[in-house]
Amino acid sequence: MVDILHKLGIKSSSLDNTYRALTTCEGLSAWWTHNTQGENKLGGVLQFRFGAGGFDMKVLELRPARRVQWQVVDGPEEWIGTKISFDLKQEGDWTIILFKHEGWKEPVEFMHHCSTKWAVFLLSLKSLLETGRGAPHPNEIKLDSWE
Amino acid sequence: MVDILHKLGIKSSSLDNTYRALTTCEGLSAWWTHNTQGENKLGGVLQFRFGAGGFDMKVLELRPARRVQWQVVDGPEEWIGTKISFDLKQEGDWTIILFKHEGWKEPVEFMHHCSTKWAVFLLSLKSLLETGRGAPHPNEIKLDSWE
Repeated sequence: MVDILHKLGIKSSSLDNTYRALTTCEGLSAWWTHNTQGENKLGGVLQFRFGAGGFDMKVLELRPARRVQWQVVDGPEEWIGTKISFDLKQEGDWTIILFKHEGWKEPVEFMHHCSTKWAVFLLSLKSLLETGRGAPHPNEIKLDSWE
Repeated sequence: MVDILHKLGIKSSSLDNTYRALTTCEGLSAWWTHNTQGENKLGGVLQFRFGAGGFDMKVLELRPARRVQWQVVDGPEEWIGTKISFDLKQEGDWTIILFKHEGWKEPVEFMHHCSTKWAVFLLSLKSLLETGRGAPHPNEIKLDSWE
């Protein structure tokens, strides 16, 4: 098992604002993908759609201002069953997110891509919270010819 | 042992240009840190300096237009002995870099930070090669209060 790990510091935001951007369709669609739908409650399923396909995530944990965890229930084969979590904490002026996408079976080339792509979207989240403007799909930085 | 993995596609560059950006002080200082010095040859040591410190890397592999590998010989404790590699290939119009920073003993919080920070600098490399302008330190995106 191998994991994708990231840490993101956001200036002049708050735990509540950051949590909202991770737990409402309005928030998620402003930094990850415009095409976000579903039920943002424990046990609910969120649908994230991109040009080439998408992911369905079951909501496993919702701890306000602390932690969000999803499990992938549909999407690319390598993603199914993997878990994605966001742990939040405050350090002075900075809101910190510890991000983990865990449960990859093998460190395949697609995992390398997803690691960098998660960073692109997390930087979009940082921009959204710091400036009011993210760069969600389809306006994100493209990393590959097939995107 | 846990690894940081990334994949970066660069449009309208070439294997030779990309290799040059990874193997000359002029190239490295245009996307990673302005303060880059040292001997870019097999067995040579490169010094990368940042505000808060830096890294010394021994050059382990130099395969033109194919692969570069360094080993950290001085820097933060968690980095010493770890290896960093860039594998290059061409896919149509895109030059692809598979990046690996391997040999971390534990998935500590600093590793989460470095994973995202490598993505920030790889996006700077992409920008340098696609537009002629990177965002090396001290002008890169800051991810933490101590940066």
